[in-house]
Amino acid sequence: MKQAIVARKDLGMGAGKLAAQVAHASLMAYEDADAKTRSAWKGEGQKKVVLRADSESELFELAEKAKSERLPHAVVRDAGHTQLDPGTASALAVGPAKDRAVDAVTGELSLY
Amino acid sequence: MKQAIVARKDLGMGAGKLAAQVAHASLMAYEDADAKTRSAWKGEGQKKVVLRADSESELFELAEKAKSERLPHAVVRDAGHTQLDPGTASALAVGPAKDRAVDAVTGELSLY
Repeated sequence: MKQAIVARKDLGMGAGKLAAQVAHASLMAYEDADAKTRSAWKGEGQKKVVLRADSESELFELAEKAKSERLPHAVVRDAGHTQLDPGTASALAVGPAKDRAVDAVTGELSLY
Repeated sequence: MKQAIVARKDLGMGAGKLAAQVAHASLMAYEDADAKTRSAWKGEGQKKVVLRADSESELFELAEKAKSERLPHAVVRDAGHTQLDPGTASALAVGPAKDRAVDAVTGELSLY
């Protein structure tokens, strides 16, 4: 099992900002999963991979795909206190779910 | 309320690797908090801040302080599949907790 977190590289976020957005997305999608899935993923060491998107539209297309596959997922919109405009979609997490199911959505993407 | 995630800059992790370690730490400390605290923090938008440490000993000293203050916390040790040696302590999350309580542990640190 794994969780893929897709973050927008085009926003030019600093490393700490990026990490905070990825952590938001990760936790939100985790909470979108059922208890059995959460527990199984944690038992395996909560594998996470951080991938790269280059636009808001790409992020939303991937989110739609995750939704249609009925996978736990969440899009983060930034509150805009610091580096980004308020409401900017910055990251999407897909899973935890089986590797193959996550790859069906994010398998074409590069590592961030 | 907030959660502070302290990551080691001296390890020279890439941005994606850093983000994954921060997300691990965040989720583990979240699970170390009680249900009321988790719920309150999420209700406020799950504020997270990513801070900088420069050694393993610094990370462990902060973890001890969090423990003595009875704050939810977690240290991440890397599985060592990619950039780091197995067992390397890479990040510490403190909170969610009240801002002042988190600042008592991590208030002297710089943003990552």
